[in-house]
Amino acid sequence: MDEEFVVTPWEVRGRVDYQKLMQQFGARPLTQAEVSLLEKYAGEVHPLIRRGFFYAHRDLDAILKWHGEGKPWALYTGRGPSGPVHIGHMVPWILLKWLSDKFGVEVYFQMTDDEKFYDDPEMRLEEATKWAYENALDVIALGFTPDKLHLIIDTKDIKPLYPIAAKVAKKLTWNTVKATFGFTDSTNIGLIFYPSLQIAVAFLPTELHGRPTPVLIPCAIDQDPYFRLARDIAESLGYPKPATLYSKFIMALTGESKMSASNPNSAIYTIDDEKTIRRKIANAYTGGRPTAEEQRRLGGNPDVCPVYHYHMLFDPDDASVEKIYHSCKSGALLCGECKQMLYEKIRKFVKQHQEAREKARDKVDAYRLSSKLS
Amino acid sequence: MDEEFVVTPWEVRGRVDYQKLMQQFGARPLTQAEVSLLEKYAGEVHPLIRRGFFYAHRDLDAILKWHGEGKPWALYTGRGPSGPVHIGHMVPWILLKWLSDKFGVEVYFQMTDDEKFYDDPEMRLEEATKWAYENALDVIALGFTPDKLHLIIDTKDIKPLYPIAAKVAKKLTWNTVKATFGFTDSTNIGLIFYPSLQIAVAFLPTELHGRPTPVLIPCAIDQDPYFRLARDIAESLGYPKPATLYSKFIMALTGESKMSASNPNSAIYTIDDEKTIRRKIANAYTGGRPTAEEQRRLGGNPDVCPVYHYHMLFDPDDASVEKIYHSCKSGALLCGECKQMLYEKIRKFVKQHQEAREKARDKVDAYRLSSKLS
Repeated sequence: MDEEFVVTPWEVRGRVDYQKLMQQFGARPLTQAEVSLLEKYAGEVHPLIRRGFFYAHRDLDAILKWHGEGKPWALYTGRGPSGPVHIGHMVPWILLKWLSDKFGVEVYFQMTDDEKFYDDPEMRLEEATKWAYENALDVIALGFTPDKLHLIIDTKDIKPLYPIAAKVAKKLTWNTVKATFGFTDSTNIGLIFYPSLQIAVAFLPTELHGRPTPVLIPCAIDQDPYFRLARDIAESLGYPKPATLYSKFIMALTGESKMSASNPNSAIYTIDDEKTIRRKIANAYTGGRPTAEEQRRLGGNPDVCPVYHYHMLFDPDDASVEKIYHSCKSGALLCGECKQMLYEKIRKFVKQHQEAREKARDKVDAYRLSSKLS
Repeated sequence: MDEEFVVTPWEVRGRVDYQKLMQQFGARPLTQAEVSLLEKYAGEVHPLIRRGFFYAHRDLDAILKWHGEGKPWALYTGRGPSGPVHIGHMVPWILLKWLSDKFGVEVYFQMTDDEKFYDDPEMRLEEATKWAYENALDVIALGFTPDKLHLIIDTKDIKPLYPIAAKVAKKLTWNTVKATFGFTDSTNIGLIFYPSLQIAVAFLPTELHGRPTPVLIPCAIDQDPYFRLARDIAESLGYPKPATLYSKFIMALTGESKMSASNPNSAIYTIDDEKTIRRKIANAYTGGRPTAEEQRRLGGNPDVCPVYHYHMLFDPDDASVEKIYHSCKSGALLCGECKQMLYEKIRKFVKQHQEAREKARDKVDAYRLSSKLS
């Protein structure tokens, strides 16, 4: 029997059935055909795709075909800056960087400080904007150069976006957004308008380049409602339909389907120190057995274990990940040792990231789209 | 018995009962007390106030008191650029210029090209923006210098506005704007968000100056719903409440309460040539009698006559206007002669205006707020 689950851009509740969710939204599964096409152009397949973390899409095949014809396209994703970035947030951005490198395309990255402000009654606008700048450090730290990464902080860089958003907004009625996003009579008009801005970025590269420049949007599948609407109206506005590549959510350290901003122990932040990271991993849920003896005898369940999930996300070596999976299942690998192994991997990742992150400080404005247009 | 009438920011229907409308909206009548206070600081009273064309307000007295204390304030008004400006549109702007001169205060002038685009299914955004530039010429032609007039074309100058609009938007729910503006389920989300932008300009001078700088908004009374909302939320956002000064509508040459953009013969445009102006005035409704004999015997009705209305609006000489009123009523002045007199006044006004208007061409950007901030 299926558990109930709810997924909207603002909420994930219950244990998510990803196949069912994809079907509900009407996205398509990532098949071997698309993966092979991707490999043809990229020369390899990224582990996050190979391991099924990115698992659904709309028109990925069309974008790859377009690329094969030598036509221009761009990457687009975003972040709602409501607090520090956790390493789970980094995962789709790692793929983003890989795609940008392999295909040599520009990235449009939207920091939706306005959305976070509209959505959270307690959030001050200045606070959301501050987080936008802070979070931008994490994106830049992945190694982007300013010619490849175009940062859009909504409240700062609205100017090139607004005329496009206006055209989008005129196509969307209250009825449509109410049905698509579950808005109610007490939803504020900022949040009601906001979808126009998220959709507008999908059309921005075409405006800036003056020729059809579709985007591929790697993001978590909860963002599909925006891009479904974007695809519905694209052609009537003279823009190419955006393509999407959808990931599952990053499991919380507590074992839930998605990390919660309200529980800082459910996630490892990119600004956590080593002691904190060690403690968080040590305290993580694993779904393991009550005693070591039972664990050895009956084995663990890596499929529900966030510790295994993080090995899968952060270890580039397929053989190593597979070994962890099977030795967990067989009972050979106990949770304590597995956590220690994970700590080493995460510690190394975070250390390197924090260094790159600090080097990005004071460079954010050079990445902002506005600074390049003016 | 009262005729039915409807007044919203997008529609005026029926014969407007201005006293009733003021009461419905909850604005206050302009009394001798406020007019005297205005005269104290301005040294005189503008004919448009003296003659009751501006007739209602919110907190005009408070702004004048604030002025008396030597504190800073600003003027704010706007225009929905959907086509050429008619001379009726100029009337409140003439008062605006007078207020700016007499009190030495800056004017924030919003061109709502986005609103016109959202509201009119047939309007292209580029067309509305083109009209914003064209209409700006008419404002500048009144003699403003760039240090006193700050032009905001919404789609071009959104940047300083959006963070304020976001704070406004978060305070306004679908319920509120639906009730205030009569939005329906099929209203587009651009028009739903738009009130945030019109309200935001009322708070912009305070942001730019970094200290409380209330605005006085001279405008037609149909704009009251926006500024009622602005006043409701101002204090919770830390801004002073905007004050307003409301005019009646400019009568159509056809005798209706307000001119209609869909009938070009109902208005004299600032770009009309002399022949066109002559023809439009000659064909104007007057409410006069069927024959000259009856007119002489029974007299005319200047209170319903757009020709008299325009004399009242454009003749600075009180004695001259009064003479027209009474000789119309007595039957001494026939409609033909009265129209000829009006033609001479309007012709002169338009000729001088057109010269000033052409001199403003290519200078618009110097007046735009964005060009001063960047």
